[in-house]
Amino acid sequence: MSDYRNEWQPPNRILLGPGPSNVHPRVLQAMLSPMLGHLDPDFWPVLDQVRDMLRLVLGTTHNWTLPLSATGTAGMEAAFCNVVEPGDRVVIVVNGFFGERMVDIALRCRADVQRIDVPWGKPVLPELVAQALAAQGHVKAVGVVHAETSTGVLSPLQEIAQVVHHHDALLIVDAVTSLGGVELCMDEWDLDLCYGASQKCLGAPPGLAPISLGPRAVDVVTHRQHPVQSLYLDMVTLEAYWSERRRYHHTAPILMLYALREALRLIMEEGVQQRWQRHAHTAAGLRAGLEALELELFAAPAYRLDPLTTVVVPDKVDAAQVQRQLYQHYNIEIGGGLGALQGKIWRIGLMGDSCKASNVLLVLAALEHSLAQQGYADARGVGVAAAQQVFAAS
Amino acid sequence: MSDYRNEWQPPNRILLGPGPSNVHPRVLQAMLSPMLGHLDPDFWPVLDQVRDMLRLVLGTTHNWTLPLSATGTAGMEAAFCNVVEPGDRVVIVVNGFFGERMVDIALRCRADVQRIDVPWGKPVLPELVAQALAAQGHVKAVGVVHAETSTGVLSPLQEIAQVVHHHDALLIVDAVTSLGGVELCMDEWDLDLCYGASQKCLGAPPGLAPISLGPRAVDVVTHRQHPVQSLYLDMVTLEAYWSERRRYHHTAPILMLYALREALRLIMEEGVQQRWQRHAHTAAGLRAGLEALELELFAAPAYRLDPLTTVVVPDKVDAAQVQRQLYQHYNIEIGGGLGALQGKIWRIGLMGDSCKASNVLLVLAALEHSLAQQGYADARGVGVAAAQQVFAAS
Repeated sequence: MSDYRNEWQPPNRILLGPGPSNVHPRVLQAMLSPMLGHLDPDFWPVLDQVRDMLRLVLGTTHNWTLPLSATGTAGMEAAFCNVVEPGDRVVIVVNGFFGERMVDIALRCRADVQRIDVPWGKPVLPELVAQALAAQGHVKAVGVVHAETSTGVLSPLQEIAQVVHHHDALLIVDAVTSLGGVELCMDEWDLDLCYGASQKCLGAPPGLAPISLGPRAVDVVTHRQHPVQSLYLDMVTLEAYWSERRRYHHTAPILMLYALREALRLIMEEGVQQRWQRHAHTAAGLRAGLEALELELFAAPAYRLDPLTTVVVPDKVDAAQVQRQLYQHYNIEIGGGLGALQGKIWRIGLMGDSCKASNVLLVLAALEHSLAQQGYADARGVGVAAAQQVFAAS
Repeated sequence: MSDYRNEWQPPNRILLGPGPSNVHPRVLQAMLSPMLGHLDPDFWPVLDQVRDMLRLVLGTTHNWTLPLSATGTAGMEAAFCNVVEPGDRVVIVVNGFFGERMVDIALRCRADVQRIDVPWGKPVLPELVAQALAAQGHVKAVGVVHAETSTGVLSPLQEIAQVVHHHDALLIVDAVTSLGGVELCMDEWDLDLCYGASQKCLGAPPGLAPISLGPRAVDVVTHRQHPVQSLYLDMVTLEAYWSERRRYHHTAPILMLYALREALRLIMEEGVQQRWQRHAHTAAGLRAGLEALELELFAAPAYRLDPLTTVVVPDKVDAAQVQRQLYQHYNIEIGGGLGALQGKIWRIGLMGDSCKASNVLLVLAALEHSLAQQGYADARGVGVAAAQQVFAAS
């Protein structure tokens, strides 16, 4: 038995992996506010304010917008189990680990899943979706990952939405790694269902999954033939609590909602677009530094994701050893590859409060030093210098 | 739009409803520890320690013991969706709102549900379960709520387990309101699957649902014909993360796990049995006070639950008005009735850190005063005096 008697004294990490990201002190502070019950009328403004601010971050006025009391994977599950009924045909474009997970989840919802595979590292392009839909009979929904956390690739949603609606299908969007860090306009782009996670670009702790349903999705959910297979994620019953009816569904995770509220307030103060720009600008510095170190970026050039940069591990370099060194010598977390990419790429996140120039400089310095120890190249500070140049130019 | 620009300044409630309960300052403090990533080896001791301590609270050595990243309702869902396959016969004894919810969830798992109804306020008795099982063909699992949060009734699990195993079925136990506050010995009583919630007698914030599976349940789960319909709650894939394999499943709610760890440490320091005794003793004071006020207790006398006492609302008293007064004048939360019991009972919780003599005295004084304002009786302090007598006798 490990010893729980000791005080818990974790190292003070700089979190530059695929999430969680570091949390602003105000967000932590918010969790110390007196706890209220989930049916206390004095708690209700928190529910309303969280919904209002989530809508602003998602770029939507959709009524059915709320954070699920679970993580992003539950967001994915809620999307499919509310929309899909047994036997419904669903097209899922797989260009990474989380597209693969969509297939798994949709199959567990007993969908008739038609998968389209795109090489990992490439985006989902509208032409491919159009081809796939033209070759199918009626398709109920198309699932696309906006920002593939496993590959660092961003896909062009607006054009995909047009194609999908041309075929009278719903577009289900995984925005786990994009929400709050990359342009995302649910209404303007006409997305039907979108879910995210609290612990990435939103800057809250892990544990909540915002989800929003547009009118087409609500229409489908409110006219189902079969009950949603999950009561916990059943949007109709969740909405009965989050709406003014305040009907008991489950005990809301009060302190997590306090934290999300404060994280969203910080976004409101910064401005949603300004926040996207910060993520873009900071990532540009990181990419310049990595390229100056002659490291290869994994994602297709025109589709690189700002909040998460993927780097090919050079020949003869031990990926896990570099991650260990970063933990031990610099207190920095970066992510490794998931699934087939394990040991082949690193994933460097610049999300939320972790997304700042000083973290870019530090991770570049640390990476260069660690790579030099494995004989990759001399450490000459070229990565840091290249990033500095980008930051100075702004 | 409600105004999120203001600081969040909730009232400082004494939480005496059906949960959440008040949280010890050490638990809050733990959430301020530096956040680690869910795949950081330095985080893994937290996972091991939480499992170890949960086993001690549950009275088990079962390997498959972990907190789900969601609330108690998800615990119920995990229980049924992991054990049940489509068409499996399941017997559920319904003696309150949460038994009703078990039926709902089991049906969503496509079980062949045989329900046995017991009047709300009465316990589930082993003879009834024996009768029901004798009248059925093969039954895969029996679902029973140990402590019905809607009625304040405790059912005798040990005898029920014997009956259930005599018929080669699994016993699924809802311990949401009992875990950590009432005697519960998973191994000694031979319970096959048990789930709870973080925010009641365990004294952590809401958001986690401990679950534990014994060998019969693990055998069923690892020999399924069909995939578990929820990936998020799939115990095989969750165990792959919580075991030494540390295989990515979802982003663990890091800060909530810090909080649960600290809440469990407080239980270890107090002693599990001492904690049950504290809940019993404190509730005895409350019951004596309520009876001195000539209020009727709702639950059957021999089966009253210590962490949650249910009180019949007297004739001509407006239940909701009393709750409002307690909020407004005393900053006390008590619960109202759920479902069919709305407006008919109150539910007074004494759970975890909220479970103390001073809260009993305060809620009795407040209740007496509020009832007097509605003409129920003069406020003469008899409730407080009766409780004092119980506390003085110890």
